[in-house]
Amino acid sequence: MTRALEGITVLDLSRYVAGPYCTQMLGDFGADVIKIEKPDGGDPMRGDGAATGDDKLYMLMYNRNKRSLTLNLRHESGREILASLIQGADVLVENFRPGTMEAMGFGWEAISALNPAMVMARISGFGQDGPWAKRPAFDAIAQAEGGLMHLTGSENGEATMMGAIMIDYSTGTNAALGVLAALHARERTGRGQVVDVPLLDTAMSFLMTAVAEYQRDSVVMGRMGNRDRYSAPTNTYPTRDGKRLHLMAAGQKHFEALVEIMGEGKIHDNPAFASPADRLENADLVDETVAGWFARHDQDWLYERLVAAEVPCARLATVAEVVENPQVKHRGQIIEVEHPNLGTVSLQGNPIRLTDTPVETHRAVPTLGQHTDEILAELLDFDADAIAELRRDGVI
Amino acid sequence: MTRALEGITVLDLSRYVAGPYCTQMLGDFGADVIKIEKPDGGDPMRGDGAATGDDKLYMLMYNRNKRSLTLNLRHESGREILASLIQGADVLVENFRPGTMEAMGFGWEAISALNPAMVMARISGFGQDGPWAKRPAFDAIAQAEGGLMHLTGSENGEATMMGAIMIDYSTGTNAALGVLAALHARERTGRGQVVDVPLLDTAMSFLMTAVAEYQRDSVVMGRMGNRDRYSAPTNTYPTRDGKRLHLMAAGQKHFEALVEIMGEGKIHDNPAFASPADRLENADLVDETVAGWFARHDQDWLYERLVAAEVPCARLATVAEVVENPQVKHRGQIIEVEHPNLGTVSLQGNPIRLTDTPVETHRAVPTLGQHTDEILAELLDFDADAIAELRRDGVI
Repeated sequence: MTRALEGITVLDLSRYVAGPYCTQMLGDFGADVIKIEKPDGGDPMRGDGAATGDDKLYMLMYNRNKRSLTLNLRHESGREILASLIQGADVLVENFRPGTMEAMGFGWEAISALNPAMVMARISGFGQDGPWAKRPAFDAIAQAEGGLMHLTGSENGEATMMGAIMIDYSTGTNAALGVLAALHARERTGRGQVVDVPLLDTAMSFLMTAVAEYQRDSVVMGRMGNRDRYSAPTNTYPTRDGKRLHLMAAGQKHFEALVEIMGEGKIHDNPAFASPADRLENADLVDETVAGWFARHDQDWLYERLVAAEVPCARLATVAEVVENPQVKHRGQIIEVEHPNLGTVSLQGNPIRLTDTPVETHRAVPTLGQHTDEILAELLDFDADAIAELRRDGVI
Repeated sequence: MTRALEGITVLDLSRYVAGPYCTQMLGDFGADVIKIEKPDGGDPMRGDGAATGDDKLYMLMYNRNKRSLTLNLRHESGREILASLIQGADVLVENFRPGTMEAMGFGWEAISALNPAMVMARISGFGQDGPWAKRPAFDAIAQAEGGLMHLTGSENGEATMMGAIMIDYSTGTNAALGVLAALHARERTGRGQVVDVPLLDTAMSFLMTAVAEYQRDSVVMGRMGNRDRYSAPTNTYPTRDGKRLHLMAAGQKHFEALVEIMGEGKIHDNPAFASPADRLENADLVDETVAGWFARHDQDWLYERLVAAEVPCARLATVAEVVENPQVKHRGQIIEVEHPNLGTVSLQGNPIRLTDTPVETHRAVPTLGQHTDEILAELLDFDADAIAELRRDGVI
């Protein structure tokens, strides 16, 4: 079985989430990802998160399909080894604070001199240049400064963080996308280039029409709770049994199917409900009417009928319900990854399905330095004595 | 200036957000994206959203760098033209309900027979197969059924929708990533393939450690408000002047810098504050202590000092503050797109920066059918008479 990115070698100097998620994507597609870690402790994520064993669950999410090489970049020999690896690789991914690679002697000029065909992906909080370039950042900092936290939460409530680290993930995906575009360009030009992807720019990219509305009309987009900004009825409604369902019945076909189930024909006579534009204009009244009907029925009863009538609706699923979802089971989206210390761990799988070169877990999450000897022998022709010496000197 | 995906032709049959965002990414990288729209009204998004002119703002977010071709696929001649275009293209992107392409005679078998090298990206709510395959879905449906809404909101409050259509965007990016991986594979195999990317699988992919924690330990991950799941202090705190700041000072270096600014040396003597693990265990006490200090100072005073000390912190910026952010200005992340009817509109730019083949807006958002004649003449050698006849017959 061939893999999509077979033959591509990725040097992964990144830590935490966004960088490792980027390289896991490349590894899922079949690239040979070499995770380069400092010998004392490696990726700091090895020590974070829900602890069960000597490696941690958080680490497991972002590091399948990689090999681990320890390398001390504060040691001259460590930097020499990195330089040699750069000469034979296709992609380098890093998410140090801007300036760090330069301080180690591996700025773009140096890397490009070693290997003009190298694609260098640089993930950062705010980008490689500019007044904020060196500020530290995490997912939530980008959510907040990027304007997304302000948009999340109820209309009269407070700005709310999204409950998942959406910007870390998305920045990683954007970086992977930039890497593949750069590899495509390289086939024509023969040259590599820098792919510069910041958390802030990624967060901003999700602002929908907010920038345009502000610049044209001086409208500052606000929070809407669970109501859709552009249509009605689209909201989360409580049900008689104290649960909630999310409904999206704004389009004419869906709204008419909803009214049919509601059995309240008089809605058709009300001009406030006539068209999508009318319903959006009268969203409060529409919401009130639908909410009244939901409140008279149990969640199961409503869900079954709405689904049967093909009206878009959803349970606010917990992870337990996600795992039990028949569609998730059918699609095999819960995968198992083997780990030498933790045994078999279940995870959500890659969301991208390629039919001819399928994504698969061909490598378990590596322990720190698990592949050091193998990589040095295979890629740089080091013999056992040389490797033993490097280990004695604290280089690996 | 060369572009990364120069020479790649994309047939874009998609509507709404996820599909058009996917193809806009490919267009930003320089592919020739042909947006194929039905002659009567085209992409339904042309009529949705904040209305200012005869095309709408929402449409503008996802359709730069494309050409528009009208084509009536209910007409035999329309299907013949699509078949001819397929023979000369590299990528086809669609987000119809599963089964629709098959019903039109353009299932994968048919497309692959016309052009074995075609990459076909299929974006859907729940995937091309399985018991939920034909259910209608939108972004919020996937947020809800995918477990993300349950994770967003305050600990004792209700499950909350993320305030931006994160899953539509991310599914589009995932599809673009899958397309580029498939194009890479094609160089070795000569074959195209299907890229199947559902909203649900994309939503699930963001569940962090939730699946693993549930399967191993039967823990159902819940909501945490603005507090980080894995560290403290990381939360949004009110300031004396009635504003709020988001702080992430959990790491040892950042926490010590925070304590230094707080000037409360006695914190160092408290074992509850000693290590990241101690602080996470005592997160309530840590939060209370930090909140007390924030409440005694104004937002500007705090922000200035924390930024100077390199402690990660953020304002909960509105779009007005995002647009005025000096880093955003320096990086030029607000771009302008020309539209024949609306004039110049400001938008957030592409978050992926390629230094050698930069992303640029080389085409404004097209009006419906703006490039129909040009495309038919250029790609299929139709002369003016043939085009006039197609128009007369309602094919274009």
